[in-house]
Amino acid sequence: MPDQKVTVAIDAMGGDHGPSVTVPAALRCLARDPELAVVLVGIEEQIASELRRHRTAVGDRLRIRHASEVVGMDESPALAMRNKKDSSMRVAIDLVKAGEANACVSAGNTGALMATARFVLKMMPGIERPAIASALPTMRGRIIMLDLGANVDCTPEHLLQFGIMGAVLVSALEGREQPSVGLLNIGEEEIKGNETVKQAADLLRASGLNFYGNIEGDDIYRGTTDVVVCDGFVGNVALKTSEGLAKMISTMLREEFSRSVFTRIAGLVALPVLNAFKRRVDPRRYNGATLLGLRGVVIKSHGGADRFSFEHSIDKAIREVRNGVLQRISEKMVVAHEDAA
Amino acid sequence: MPDQKVTVAIDAMGGDHGPSVTVPAALRCLARDPELAVVLVGIEEQIASELRRHRTAVGDRLRIRHASEVVGMDESPALAMRNKKDSSMRVAIDLVKAGEANACVSAGNTGALMATARFVLKMMPGIERPAIASALPTMRGRIIMLDLGANVDCTPEHLLQFGIMGAVLVSALEGREQPSVGLLNIGEEEIKGNETVKQAADLLRASGLNFYGNIEGDDIYRGTTDVVVCDGFVGNVALKTSEGLAKMISTMLREEFSRSVFTRIAGLVALPVLNAFKRRVDPRRYNGATLLGLRGVVIKSHGGADRFSFEHSIDKAIREVRNGVLQRISEKMVVAHEDAA
Repeated sequence: MPDQKVTVAIDAMGGDHGPSVTVPAALRCLARDPELAVVLVGIEEQIASELRRHRTAVGDRLRIRHASEVVGMDESPALAMRNKKDSSMRVAIDLVKAGEANACVSAGNTGALMATARFVLKMMPGIERPAIASALPTMRGRIIMLDLGANVDCTPEHLLQFGIMGAVLVSALEGREQPSVGLLNIGEEEIKGNETVKQAADLLRASGLNFYGNIEGDDIYRGTTDVVVCDGFVGNVALKTSEGLAKMISTMLREEFSRSVFTRIAGLVALPVLNAFKRRVDPRRYNGATLLGLRGVVIKSHGGADRFSFEHSIDKAIREVRNGVLQRISEKMVVAHEDAA
Repeated sequence: MPDQKVTVAIDAMGGDHGPSVTVPAALRCLARDPELAVVLVGIEEQIASELRRHRTAVGDRLRIRHASEVVGMDESPALAMRNKKDSSMRVAIDLVKAGEANACVSAGNTGALMATARFVLKMMPGIERPAIASALPTMRGRIIMLDLGANVDCTPEHLLQFGIMGAVLVSALEGREQPSVGLLNIGEEEIKGNETVKQAADLLRASGLNFYGNIEGDDIYRGTTDVVVCDGFVGNVALKTSEGLAKMISTMLREEFSRSVFTRIAGLVALPVLNAFKRRVDPRRYNGATLLGLRGVVIKSHGGADRFSFEHSIDKAIREVRNGVLQRISEKMVVAHEDAA
């Protein structure tokens, strides 16, 4: 059976590098996937010029949709949403809303993408807040963690909804029935979590999900559960702290291997091993966070993504469409709603 | 000028290894520091037997104080505090209260240590909540981060007090005037932190501290500021997540170097470099969290600490006493109080 046809709208202007990254990444995906169509959204002249550099012409599977404005990476999300109705980001989301694309991918301003997507696409029934979900590497494979920064103040109900959506995402993408869900908490008995987390644990326990219970920060990379649920403040700090620590470790390793002639030779000898290690934890392979809970598939790429990294975001959008993530979440929410009633 | 005489009460039974770690660590510190005296608190028979193994007798600088009970690592802090009045932990804290010791060190149950220390020693005037503070390695040196798990729900005032105490700790221990203080937050403009963090930023800005402003998770290991302030939930998750990631990275590196004969040889060649790297980030060198805000110096060692690691906790206690951390915090709180009035 051939793969399902999928059309992805790409915010070609988003991210630190714009069309010089987004366009070649799209071309690579098109070359690999004959059932994929792409709409490159943004300033036509710049996109066309990038296509010429790759000696590629538009056609049935590759179109350009002109959008005259670009949302800056540091722009206020509220202002961007209100004032830039013809931004590449907005038009890409509009294409999803209009049914002309099955998903959209952007490396642009996260806050603006979230606000605009929520405004244009609306929330799914039963979901009050969107969540940012992403895969992270672990000792055992990978986990899905959410929310990574969309919501700073969450109610127990929000955390329950994150748990449901995260579990559906893992089931859909990895074919795992009843993935385990952990609630991020802290360890001290006396002070086991704040009230919100305690109540969320009760809701998750009664939800019919495969709820593992409370987990601690070190369980994330241990891969104790398939899904990690937390509020956006905690999730964002955990993610950024991890990025900082990984950067420090790699910088220090490089420094140690550059100290002397001897250590440089040792570094050369160890290089293939160090590279194999780097491939295993390469964050580029995990690029692409899902904005969950919207009536449409929206993937946020890291702003600094390179071509390889952005390709992974497009792939993620395609996989979510083909695996019916939206449909599955909405079915699950109906069931959850009926159970509660 | 000789170093100031310091007496440290050691909860000899605390931690995963009890006297087999705490006693030899104490003996090493005594050998290095002629102005140090130690009281080993716990089950006399077990401590004496450990001393015999090291062919050491008690004397002026080394005493045993019998305590008949031990607080379990998983015991409820409230119950431990209420029911175990003759635990090694409690008696060590009592010695500080009675002025027979200048500080106490325990590798025992964190919650019980916190609850008992707070009950016995009481809070300093002007400080409403104790905080767990610890040093972490960064690209530039080290930072002090607090709170790492004592408080899950903090008010803006608590975060301000953490900022003041953290800055005093850095000044006292590292002789740095006006250390910079960062408030841990998340990056999205739209949702820049919750209300508590926003109000804490206002208080810190008006406090006379060298307030850097908001920082993000990756700033911790970048060493952007000298002090990182956050609530105990976020701090604990960030710390444990870091521990988990560091563990995953070192496990994967070891796996990659063990794959084949070739990679094993590469590992041998690279070993001195990898060891130099490991020494640089060795968490044992950072062992010993300070319970700040109490009327007494209390240091919490990691429960799994080995001899080397526990020694660092004792050293930390000694340095805090000799650098007058308590006195400095209480002076600073008086000033802060007068400024506010």
